[in-house]
Amino acid sequence: MSAQTARAPAPQPAILLQENIGSIRVLTLNRPAARNSLSEGLIAELHAALTEIHDDNSVRAVVIAANGPAFSAGHDMKELTARRSDSDRGRAYFGQVMNACSAMMQAVVHLPKPVVAAVQGIATAAGCQLVASCDLAVASEAAGFATPGVDIGLFCSTPMVALSRNIPRKQAMEMLLTGEPISAAVAKNIGLVNRVVAAGTERDAAIALAQKVALKSAYTVKLGKEAFYRQAEMSLADAYRYAAEVMTENMMARDAEEGIGAFIEKREPKWQDK
Amino acid sequence: MSAQTARAPAPQPAILLQENIGSIRVLTLNRPAARNSLSEGLIAELHAALTEIHDDNSVRAVVIAANGPAFSAGHDMKELTARRSDSDRGRAYFGQVMNACSAMMQAVVHLPKPVVAAVQGIATAAGCQLVASCDLAVASEAAGFATPGVDIGLFCSTPMVALSRNIPRKQAMEMLLTGEPISAAVAKNIGLVNRVVAAGTERDAAIALAQKVALKSAYTVKLGKEAFYRQAEMSLADAYRYAAEVMTENMMARDAEEGIGAFIEKREPKWQDK
Amino acid sequence: MSAQTARAPAPQPAILLQENIGSIRVLTLNRPAARNSLSEGLIAELHAALTEIHDDNSVRAVVIAANGPAFSAGHDMKELTARRSDSDRGRAYFGQVMNACSAMMQAVVHLPKPVVAAVQGIATAAGCQLVASCDLAVASEAAGFATPGVDIGLFCSTPMVALSRNIPRKQAMEMLLTGEPISAAVAKNIGLVNRVVAAGTERDAAIALAQKVALKSAYTVKLGKEAFYRQAEMSLADAYRYAAEVMTENMMARDAEEGIGAFIEKREPKWQDK
Repeated sequence: MSAQTARAPAPQPAILLQENIGSIRVLTLNRPAARNSLSEGLIAELHAALTEIHDDNSVRAVVIAANGPAFSAGHDMKELTARRSDSDRGRAYFGQVMNACSAMMQAVVHLPKPVVAAVQGIATAAGCQLVASCDLAVASEAAGFATPGVDIGLFCSTPMVALSRNIPRKQAMEMLLTGEPISAAVAKNIGLVNRVVAAGTERDAAIALAQKVALKSAYTVKLGKEAFYRQAEMSLADAYRYAAEVMTENMMARDAEEGIGAFIEKREPKWQDK
Repeated sequence: MSAQTARAPAPQPAILLQENIGSIRVLTLNRPAARNSLSEGLIAELHAALTEIHDDNSVRAVVIAANGPAFSAGHDMKELTARRSDSDRGRAYFGQVMNACSAMMQAVVHLPKPVVAAVQGIATAAGCQLVASCDLAVASEAAGFATPGVDIGLFCSTPMVALSRNIPRKQAMEMLLTGEPISAAVAKNIGLVNRVVAAGTERDAAIALAQKVALKSAYTVKLGKEAFYRQAEMSLADAYRYAAEVMTENMMARDAEEGIGAFIEKREPKWQDK
Repeated sequence: MSAQTARAPAPQPAILLQENIGSIRVLTLNRPAARNSLSEGLIAELHAALTEIHDDNSVRAVVIAANGPAFSAGHDMKELTARRSDSDRGRAYFGQVMNACSAMMQAVVHLPKPVVAAVQGIATAAGCQLVASCDLAVASEAAGFATPGVDIGLFCSTPMVALSRNIPRKQAMEMLLTGEPISAAVAKNIGLVNRVVAAGTERDAAIALAQKVALKSAYTVKLGKEAFYRQAEMSLADAYRYAAEVMTENMMARDAEEGIGAFIEKREPKWQDK
């Protein structure tokens, strides 16, 4: 209405909300009207938040949640399409966005703290990839998962990197080739999420799961998470050589000495950095 | 009867039947009396069919089905055994058949079109391998799967290459070491097949699944299928580098431009090569 | 009581019991009061037993069972902690134990005979790793599995090498990061064990499963088990090249000739080395 157009523009709400709940940082995708699509801006804000959290000792674990009916619809197709008018028809820009998105997803993997997805709605394409990239995932029974890029001529090639490292091959192929969604229950059966909870409780359940890990030694969790993803790419012999070294280092650390002592003495451990 | 012996010999039925249903090529193993064992001839016909389909733009997806009670019993043991009388006791011939079979199985993987198995009966040894090699699989509830080579002193070594890339390690080991069959239901639970349907409907269900994929952009499916199997063998960092390139290429293609445009304009896309 | 203290000390029971049941060697962890923790001595005895079995043609398969309420609690924390007083605070000793344990676990994988775990109680940390390292596993419905090192500041880094090669990534991460146990039923669902049986029947069930494999050609099982783990680390093309060679070698062996002949003639095969 005309009365409104005369007013000063309302301030844009932040596209990524950040909240500390105890030692848990909750990142909430907040572009509900755009189905939380991963615009260049949202990718950058997620990556910046992860970078900041990386070195913030007060944050022990991260939850990635979302506002609105969808968890995330993947890339922002309108934003990408707008660059068709570039002199190179968008090629440079597309490459830049794909690389930025892949780097952000790998920042989740390389963050030395556990990251738990709280999936309240449908997670599609790069949205599904974000869930697959997290260490753990809690889904509402109302959630769904899909890699429907094939339906718009754009195969979910980067999402499949994360997806195919979570679920069996034929199920991944079915999602990628048909574009059809799977339910939260199926996602749990095939390994894409850890838990399915009543709709509306997924955020709290994810925070509770993150809090459980946040009570452990931050040093130990950091060491272990990094080793998990590194050894996964090695041969058995190399993985054992590497893991035995990691475990010996771990034994020499103050938190292991304290933790083992507490275990033997049947008391609660006091971690160094808490 | 003697009256019949006087007649000219009936023409041998084809050992591989081919039928086009819309844009779907249905290949039907047709050696039911030999339990569709993969004789040298049948391996060659399958490979030749895949080679022909590779470049036939009218074919968008493939279904591999079978006639008779068994899907396929694997290698033709009588044919192999007959070559024990070769001067090298069959070694050269066995190597040739194993290589030919492995090449055919990899031709399924490298075909730039989805391949769906329609499993109506028991699939054993290289027959089970053929199912595992397909991108997708639909099984009758009457189907079964086994790698029983160990029972005849011939471990299912080539079948396990495909099998162990579909299902968890301990389940694969159980099939390989005991030789015992698993039901279609178990096969679905562990990831060897996508769907289990009522007996007698598996061929139609596989065709319907193939048709669903056949409606997508052939360019996109080709790009995505190839990328799927390539990235599966890479480290996470390499896989992302590669997949981001693939996705950028994909964005520049006509079908992605059309598909994304149709998505934004909420209309049906018209793929280039249809 | 004082009357007892006057007696000569009772002989220490063996920490690893060995029993032959037909062609099955049953190894029973026998430190029930220490929850069968893998002390340096028990690791050495297990490795020595595996080395001896390696070349004992009378043994066709191995079952690893345990006495007491726990299957195995993992490393012996008291033994490790005692070495904190070494001049290097135990570093050299810890490295030595981790390497010895990793070598023993790999000896299970490299043993040319199937190894079946019979899990009657909770298997934690390196105890869970031992189950994951076996080719097959039977669990009591009363069994449980956990990698709780994170609770004592010592991440289960070596256990995760085996665990993460058995079960999906997010489930592995949940076990490793939360330290919480999973039930036998969940362990079966995610691929960590093959079968769950009534409490008290797991040892017999594991022996029965081992006996089934022990009836096969020892040559064939040896060839196949080795090939399984080797091809698992190869690309698809390399795996097929290698497996086709293995299968050709296998065809030339006496047991394959006998087995295939018996199959064609519909009689029982007589394996060479039985």
